[in-house]
Amino acid sequence: MPPLPSELAYVPFVSVANMMGLVHHIGIEQVLCDLADAIEADFKRWELFDKTPRVASHSDVGVIELMPTSDGEMYGFKYVNGHPKNTKEGLQTVTAFGLLADVDTGYPKLLSEMTLLTALRTAATSAMAARHLAPKGARTMAMIGNGAQSEFQCLAFKAICGIDTVRLFDIDQAATARCAANLAGRGLNVVQCQTSQSAMEGAEIITTCTADKQNATILTDNMVGSGVHINAIGGDCPGKTELHRDILLRSDIVVEYPAQTRIEGEIQQLDDDHPVTQLWQVIAGSAKGRSDEKQITLFDSVGFAIEDFSALRYVLNAIQGTSYSTQLDMIADPDDPRDLFGMFERANS
Amino acid sequence: MPPLPSELAYVPFVSVANMMGLVHHIGIEQVLCDLADAIEADFKRWELFDKTPRVASHSDVGVIELMPTSDGEMYGFKYVNGHPKNTKEGLQTVTAFGLLADVDTGYPKLLSEMTLLTALRTAATSAMAARHLAPKGARTMAMIGNGAQSEFQCLAFKAICGIDTVRLFDIDQAATARCAANLAGRGLNVVQCQTSQSAMEGAEIITTCTADKQNATILTDNMVGSGVHINAIGGDCPGKTELHRDILLRSDIVVEYPAQTRIEGEIQQLDDDHPVTQLWQVIAGSAKGRSDEKQITLFDSVGFAIEDFSALRYVLNAIQGTSYSTQLDMIADPDDPRDLFGMFERANS
Repeated sequence: MPPLPSELAYVPFVSVANMMGLVHHIGIEQVLCDLADAIEADFKRWELFDKTPRVASHSDVGVIELMPTSDGEMYGFKYVNGHPKNTKEGLQTVTAFGLLADVDTGYPKLLSEMTLLTALRTAATSAMAARHLAPKGARTMAMIGNGAQSEFQCLAFKAICGIDTVRLFDIDQAATARCAANLAGRGLNVVQCQTSQSAMEGAEIITTCTADKQNATILTDNMVGSGVHINAIGGDCPGKTELHRDILLRSDIVVEYPAQTRIEGEIQQLDDDHPVTQLWQVIAGSAKGRSDEKQITLFDSVGFAIEDFSALRYVLNAIQGTSYSTQLDMIADPDDPRDLFGMFERANS
Repeated sequence: MPPLPSELAYVPFVSVANMMGLVHHIGIEQVLCDLADAIEADFKRWELFDKTPRVASHSDVGVIELMPTSDGEMYGFKYVNGHPKNTKEGLQTVTAFGLLADVDTGYPKLLSEMTLLTALRTAATSAMAARHLAPKGARTMAMIGNGAQSEFQCLAFKAICGIDTVRLFDIDQAATARCAANLAGRGLNVVQCQTSQSAMEGAEIITTCTADKQNATILTDNMVGSGVHINAIGGDCPGKTELHRDILLRSDIVVEYPAQTRIEGEIQQLDDDHPVTQLWQVIAGSAKGRSDEKQITLFDSVGFAIEDFSALRYVLNAIQGTSYSTQLDMIADPDDPRDLFGMFERANS
């Protein structure tokens, strides 16, 4: 029998089943709150991070991206695809996995599913940003687009911002019905709406999360009243936007990383020098978020690598002492590091 | 009990143990020949590939890199670190893993260890290049630097180029002794040498593979006679070179991808416009490799993403119908692709 690999050869792996188990074990609303705090804490130390726009490989039908970052101690990256046409073939639009590694040795420390984790961190980031930008005392959110991300958004805004009513709309009524059924019994007042206009009645927060890879206009200017906060998360690649340009011109726009958002976000419709505020500066107190009640605030969110990094570090910490990970024999680690060949040879004995 | 994941949720995974098993099952020299042919075939269709320089995250002690590429049908990337100081801590200088995905859906198709596979593909690439560049009838190779890559290089040059004698030198005699012991009984005449000069006596091919992250001069100009082929693989990041500049000026230099090699290879010592030949052009017949027996040819190799892509595709094919992979539950794949939350909920029932 070949010798067993050394402990260094193993990388903890969180499967989809284990991620679901871990989140149920902690409780999804608690996880969303924890993630919001973890992401906020990392945004506070934004300047420490090694930041690059994601590395994208585009095809006619979708995109595959690598999103790396590092805080100098840990390195993380996420693999994520975006294929809107997948849904029609019974596949996920977005799937993802991620990795953390030790900067000092380059050795991986965690491999994790990130399809579910991305849904959680996206919702946590949206609600964390709204904590800084939405009008005080907001209780009602319009949720436009009721796809795979929608329930996570609703629960995050409940747990993190105190939303008690969500007004749902999707061009596919079955999606709205599914979202409403999934949210039943969770302490939210859920209203299914027939039009986006009706969904926005009385809403202080408007979340848009639709998936067409083309310039769409989910909201037009006359639909948006003063004082609201818009959380726009569906536009996240070149040519994919959700809001009419006139809304952008009336809004104070907050983004994650301008270099990336100008290519992928709603603001690709604006001039390159249109003023935007960075979310980390609002969190750190060096820029203003909401300053008056008439103001329209817009979080033009495309997702950024630091959010994934924060989420992976949270998971690495959360699995300690639990059974929600398995050990993957992924790293060749011979006893004598120069003797890779000898390790290979002995495996045959 | 939660419902079982769908088949789409699973990604075949080749662990270190399974990679070693697979290579022993096929035979290492056969694998090296197969990889050389696979890489050569992909270099022939070079222009089809989506090419970007690797995405590197540097620290004081090493580098972590992502190397993506795509041929339009499959997408692949490798994670690889380079930490020369690791050896002193009992760790590998280089560890790696890689992934293949379907461009049409973005779904991963293979996750594989690549520490061993990188050693194999690097050796196969070196010998494949030498097939086009080394003097006809070469039988003797000097192997300068007897670290983890050295045995793989020696076996690749035997299997692919017909080398029958290897002359080993390392500043650490224990490394030379280990390399010689590992190569015993494999049909190679192995000579342990006390100096690099002595190692090069009678050698038609000189392979340098040393690991210092600094400008070193493993070979000086007076040591290199006319007509030889130099296979320089140790210099592969900024500030890390092995050859004296004067050797470069006397050589016809062949590289993988100029944009990357000018930053990372031996030619970082030369002007940015110093003429180099691309290996794929030599293979495709649109550029000359060796044209006379006095010529010094130099393959300034830093490794390129397409070599990893070819190797991963070879492994994906080779594991079919074998037990050398396991299934990883890495992709969340709900029955209704818009119902990620419902899948999560049902996992708790």
